[in-house]
Amino acid sequence: MAKTQITAEPGIPQVVITREFEAPRDLVFRAYTDPELIVRWLGPRELTTRFDHHEPRDGGRWRYVSTDPAGNEHGFHGVFHGTPSMDGIVQTFEYEGVPGHVALETVTFEEAGGRTLVRSVSSFQSVEDRDGMVASGMESGVRTSDERLEELLVELQGR
Amino acid sequence: MAKTQITAEPGIPQVVITREFEAPRDLVFRAYTDPELIVRWLGPRELTTRFDHHEPRDGGRWRYVSTDPAGNEHGFHGVFHGTPSMDGIVQTFEYEGVPGHVALETVTFEEAGGRTLVRSVSSFQSVEDRDGMVASGMESGVRTSDERLEELLVELQGR
Repeated sequence: MAKTQITAEPGIPQVVITREFEAPRDLVFRAYTDPELIVRWLGPRELTTRFDHHEPRDGGRWRYVSTDPAGNEHGFHGVFHGTPSMDGIVQTFEYEGVPGHVALETVTFEEAGGRTLVRSVSSFQSVEDRDGMVASGMESGVRTSDERLEELLVELQGR
Repeated sequence: MAKTQITAEPGIPQVVITREFEAPRDLVFRAYTDPELIVRWLGPRELTTRFDHHEPRDGGRWRYVSTDPAGNEHGFHGVFHGTPSMDGIVQTFEYEGVPGHVALETVTFEEAGGRTLVRSVSSFQSVEDRDGMVASGMESGVRTSDERLEELLVELQGR
């Protein structure tokens, strides 16, 4: 069972998320960087997600679109700072439904005893931006994503 | 005289800098985005700065190196999120002397009565990172840069 902790302290324009998976670091990293795997766990189950592009290198751009059952599309995009590696992924993040609001995301992967601790820090441009992201239902999205990723990791390990 | 205000609140991983210049917005924007102009005002006067690359487009990378009188080199690099425009510049920022610590910088330009207010928000990955940047002499560097930019803007306007 993934243990997801979401921290959003009052007045601090950040969200810190930690979660632990029963899988080795290289597999978790692959699930975070292979677009064919990402679309299998990212976001609510009722959405269908497709990548327009995903260029995992310094300055590379990424964009994906999630479509809900009514056909509404939600676009997200950003760029990579540095080339993603198991030491970490640093990228910008913008939801196109609220354009002009950008976050910096840092994801790190730490392995211990066959388990991997994933830590994600999102730094926003303002506390208002952070609060808007939390109010948009971020927590439920994160918890569902983690459940789905856990299921995918079980499947990929043939357990 | 540029009025530079630097705000770094305790416990908040951000630095907010505002400064006002006696110049129209398009000229100030050019001074912020033309590498031949940037090197004429950025940083302490005793350093010589050169750009390795400066690609002002979505995902474009930038890197410059500042050399001190003793020949020591200090590299900085990042990527642009979105294409820089007068509506704003959003970019990542990393000082290579302390690798692995990245900030998200947002610079906006607001014109009123022939003057331009430049507002810069730097969001760090942690309060420790922010405090490290402030302790490195950031304030003196910012104030010198603003003086030099003011001088350059006077020159460019033929005043």
